[in-house]
Amino acid sequence: MTLGVFRDPRSVAVVGASDHPAKWGHWLARGALAGAHRRAVYMVNAKADTVLGQPAYQRLSDLPEVPDLVVLAVPATDSVVDEAVSLGVRGLLDISASKTSSKDLAARVRATGVRMIGPNCLGLYDASTDLRLAWGTFTGGALGIVSQSGQLGVEIANLAASLGVGVSRFVSVGDQVDVTVSDILADLVDHEPTRAIALYVEDFGDGRALVRALAELWAAGKPTLLLTVGASTASRETAQSHTGALTAPLDVVDAACRAAGAIRVRTPAELASVAHLLLSTKVTGNRLAILTDSGGQGAIAADIASAADLQVPRLSDEVSAVISQWLPERASSRNPIDLAGEGEKDLGVYSRITTALAASGEVDTVLITGYFGSYGVDIPELRARELEVVKDLAASGQTIVVHSMAADGPTVDALRANGIPVFRDVDTTLVALRGGVRAAGAQPRKVPEIGCQTGDLGAGYLAARELLATVGVRFPPCAEVNGVVQISGLRAPYVLKADWLAHKSESGAVLLDLSDHAAVVDAHAELVARLGPGRYVVEEMDTRADAVELIVGAHRDASFGPVVMVGAGGVATEFHRDTTLELAPVDIDQALAMVRRLRCAPLLDGWRGRPAVDVRGVAEVIVAVSELITARADIAELELNPVRVTADGPLAVDALVMGR
Amino acid sequence: MTLGVFRDPRSVAVVGASDHPAKWGHWLARGALAGAHRRAVYMVNAKADTVLGQPAYQRLSDLPEVPDLVVLAVPATDSVVDEAVSLGVRGLLDISASKTSSKDLAARVRATGVRMIGPNCLGLYDASTDLRLAWGTFTGGALGIVSQSGQLGVEIANLAASLGVGVSRFVSVGDQVDVTVSDILADLVDHEPTRAIALYVEDFGDGRALVRALAELWAAGKPTLLLTVGASTASRETAQSHTGALTAPLDVVDAACRAAGAIRVRTPAELASVAHLLLSTKVTGNRLAILTDSGGQGAIAADIASAADLQVPRLSDEVSAVISQWLPERASSRNPIDLAGEGEKDLGVYSRITTALAASGEVDTVLITGYFGSYGVDIPELRARELEVVKDLAASGQTIVVHSMAADGPTVDALRANGIPVFRDVDTTLVALRGGVRAAGAQPRKVPEIGCQTGDLGAGYLAARELLATVGVRFPPCAEVNGVVQISGLRAPYVLKADWLAHKSESGAVLLDLSDHAAVVDAHAELVARLGPGRYVVEEMDTRADAVELIVGAHRDASFGPVVMVGAGGVATEFHRDTTLELAPVDIDQALAMVRRLRCAPLLDGWRGRPAVDVRGVAEVIVAVSELITARADIAELELNPVRVTADGPLAVDALVMGR
Repeated sequence: MTLGVFRDPRSVAVVGASDHPAKWGHWLARGALAGAHRRAVYMVNAKADTVLGQPAYQRLSDLPEVPDLVVLAVPATDSVVDEAVSLGVRGLLDISASKTSSKDLAARVRATGVRMIGPNCLGLYDASTDLRLAWGTFTGGALGIVSQSGQLGVEIANLAASLGVGVSRFVSVGDQVDVTVSDILADLVDHEPTRAIALYVEDFGDGRALVRALAELWAAGKPTLLLTVGASTASRETAQSHTGALTAPLDVVDAACRAAGAIRVRTPAELASVAHLLLSTKVTGNRLAILTDSGGQGAIAADIASAADLQVPRLSDEVSAVISQWLPERASSRNPIDLAGEGEKDLGVYSRITTALAASGEVDTVLITGYFGSYGVDIPELRARELEVVKDLAASGQTIVVHSMAADGPTVDALRANGIPVFRDVDTTLVALRGGVRAAGAQPRKVPEIGCQTGDLGAGYLAARELLATVGVRFPPCAEVNGVVQISGLRAPYVLKADWLAHKSESGAVLLDLSDHAAVVDAHAELVARLGPGRYVVEEMDTRADAVELIVGAHRDASFGPVVMVGAGGVATEFHRDTTLELAPVDIDQALAMVRRLRCAPLLDGWRGRPAVDVRGVAEVIVAVSELITARADIAELELNPVRVTADGPLAVDALVMGR
Repeated sequence: MTLGVFRDPRSVAVVGASDHPAKWGHWLARGALAGAHRRAVYMVNAKADTVLGQPAYQRLSDLPEVPDLVVLAVPATDSVVDEAVSLGVRGLLDISASKTSSKDLAARVRATGVRMIGPNCLGLYDASTDLRLAWGTFTGGALGIVSQSGQLGVEIANLAASLGVGVSRFVSVGDQVDVTVSDILADLVDHEPTRAIALYVEDFGDGRALVRALAELWAAGKPTLLLTVGASTASRETAQSHTGALTAPLDVVDAACRAAGAIRVRTPAELASVAHLLLSTKVTGNRLAILTDSGGQGAIAADIASAADLQVPRLSDEVSAVISQWLPERASSRNPIDLAGEGEKDLGVYSRITTALAASGEVDTVLITGYFGSYGVDIPELRARELEVVKDLAASGQTIVVHSMAADGPTVDALRANGIPVFRDVDTTLVALRGGVRAAGAQPRKVPEIGCQTGDLGAGYLAARELLATVGVRFPPCAEVNGVVQISGLRAPYVLKADWLAHKSESGAVLLDLSDHAAVVDAHAELVARLGPGRYVVEEMDTRADAVELIVGAHRDASFGPVVMVGAGGVATEFHRDTTLELAPVDIDQALAMVRRLRCAPLLDGWRGRPAVDVRGVAEVIVAVSELITARADIAELELNPVRVTADGPLAVDALVMGR
């Protein structure tokens, strides 16, 4: 990479440096000077002799040396950029918002090999090199923030700071005319201080390249928390007018995150909470013990945990017996564990119970919710003891998270210093824990390159059947109606279809349950009268008992390329959106997992005494469809709807292939 | 009401008053003394001469007067309570946790007419009378807190305080051996300083009485925010061991909230956020304009708004044109409205746009999200101007909520002082707004008394048919099989059922699609061979085309009494829980609304060219079932599953009635 100039430049010149506190040039100059102990910092201002007590230069060429990095705090003009490039600077950081001219500038810059971040960005911060070239106040830490919206990036930093989480590096990428999000992410792989990444993206650009960049970060032990938009029409339109972004549907983004090992969050506050947890401790699973001094708070925590897909298992009799010996009779030792006032009498009960839970192996995480953290604040005599207990908690070897009614204070600080994250409400605590569980289960996969094969897709149902049959999808036997209706070799009952119509049922282009040749002949006459002449197909009707109807499909996302989906068939698809989706291609295990994630999955396993259906057969159809769309660059969309599946295997009874 | 002694007692005695800061008696004594300017406060401690510099009395009878209210800060003994009662005190506040003996005590107290709050509670606070008899620090305000968990109540107060919301009255009800939650709620109806109520309940007791109490508060202009547990097995078990509570399923609680005009929240933080909004401003509908200086923050807000069921409508060309004249070219004036840097140049743009939106009538609320509130903090020159804009915003006549990156500061304070709620993240902002929209739509209804009729319910399908037919539910014609199979008068095809089995399909006790007499005879022989002799029923099979299957049922909740439900039939019921539920009885409009809330509702209106079905007929079945279970005290449960409905009306094809 050639992005070193944005990590630790030898010298920095701020063009547009200003004494006026309402101007960007003021903030950037002040920030740049914070690094003056390790690099030369130059003020450039055509109208001032000094800025912030430093000599100001009229133009870049007046500086005593060629600056390594030039910060443009005023709209870049051709002459300034030309001057910088011809002087031989290595990097440009363009804060300015003038979009039109900068596109031309960028083309020129790129041709010269100078690297440029921006324009229209909020700047750059690197804690380890005291590089402060951004709007906003940052505290050093382990969270790298890369954002397509500078202000959202600053909000993430602020919210993280309120949880004691600092920033290792902040990059507002702006319009990405040269340096892209993926470039910055790649540069963070070996950026030692960065241990987790906050990423805000509106436009995924080459989505598969981004997935690979994120998977590399994951492999380096750096989880990425991804914030994006597109859950509403309004946000999609805004993103488009804001950055010209083409947002991807969120189910595709989620599939990309699974493939990349990234965790999607919905808001800056969620992001900050999950980051606090991931940077403090390691969650290994979703079994949670809740330890509280308030039955009510314990019960609320259990409800929110359950809504966040965490388990609150009933503790075994053995563990419960161990715990109950330390508690008054009215306390609950099952989970949630309610101290029922015992905490006030002896704070050591918190660490004793936590240590017992650690030894039991029955839970992955202990959530302490309620008053802990406040004892020392409200009752000075308990302060020292509460701090001792923090040490015992940390020594227990148990993953712990704390929701404390104390927003801050010495115990809260001590908990955080000992790797125990603390949150001020149970909502964010569980948001964080859920993120931790998801991060624990993250496992990026290799997402292959998209193929470039093309061929003759034909048109209509018969052509689609033929194409899909080549990859192993099974259909009922059929015959084309060529003038005369021929059904020899086919078993009754029959179905007659118009080959060329995409949504056959809705158009009345399918006649079902035809019992014999005469019925098919009549049906043909009826369809021809109604829909006109054309290619018709007579097919055996699938009448197998206890068949479950599914839909299998694939399409091509503008950013992330081919994706494959499976869903519950019939009205369930329409009203209950019971579908799962992954980046294509998928292998058989991934396809099986897709089926298993459907809410209707129990239906496939022999619901209410019906025989179990061939789930593996369905998965094989998903794999085949996913491989086909990945290999064939000429396919925009594929749909098998329905796929009827019984114990004997799946049978597709309609198919649609659309070219690009 | 006789609860005046808990509002403004003439004198207070604290039994167990202590100098030791780790003891409850210390906190309560200190709190009580804060009201010493308006009432006599006495310290009772058998082992001390003084407490907190006040003379301490050995026992209650040593006091110079009979105290009006006695606070028990140490476990109540028979003798102390007997002494208080015989002295003629009016009220007892029992903080102590000793549960066993207190039940006997309570019985004695109740017999004497003395009122008692507790035991096992965290106390009482009333801002307007300086009555501070609770653990915790409270600031005066307009939120009344009534809680079955004292500590949760304190957490609500703390979180509310962090949003600038104070407390009018706090009552930790404890074990409710005398004074109940409903008593306290009734007492708040005319408690002038209380303008909204925070209620935490685990055990709803007489749920219908609670619904009436909440409806009275609503009628007095005081919305109630209800927090409860029961969304998880763990919380239900905890509540049971914590307060002996029998928690109600949340769908029943939600139905009760709709009937009561109360708003259910999930957590203390949600409660505090919604309370802040309701106590600041009035939301009138769900149309939202988003005004931001960051495209990213606007888009995130739009997504979260959409997830919270708010609309972010595209503004009309007229309004958009008005707004865009004040914005740079790259800004978006559609909604979200993105200032694109204009805010820094001229803060007046915020109030100009808001005023234009108010005039347009196109939205109900304006959400300002992003940097506003920080301008004055970061740039001192802008402080005065930002405060001026706050006044202009307040004068706009528009309902406004603010998410500000500034957690606090003069502008945040000024916004709140001007009735504009401010939140520190977009998550809680939208949680609050959603609560505001729900509060705007709240409309309690009269929930009648439960009837006490009984009769002969019989057993089996025929008896259930007969009972339901009396309230107008239609079934297909049928005949009992009495030795010989008789089908005269019935139309083919036929169904044969075992009358006595509840889950007929799963037990193989239904044989479908029998075409003639011989088939029914064979089927009968088969069922007798398999299930044994018994009552069998032959019925016309409902073969109407395009029928939609629904389920209609009713049951009796332990707290809230009879409830009625409707749901999508078949597997949708099992996997997608597409059901709605209300307290019974419902009228025709409420029943229609229940059907309309189903996700599958579009299926009923003529889905994909099918004829629309008789929705009113379905609603009539719901009304009939709801009235039946309300009138008949001997029915535990009713189920019609499925009800097959076409354009010709609904037909129940199975029925189940269970007695209590």
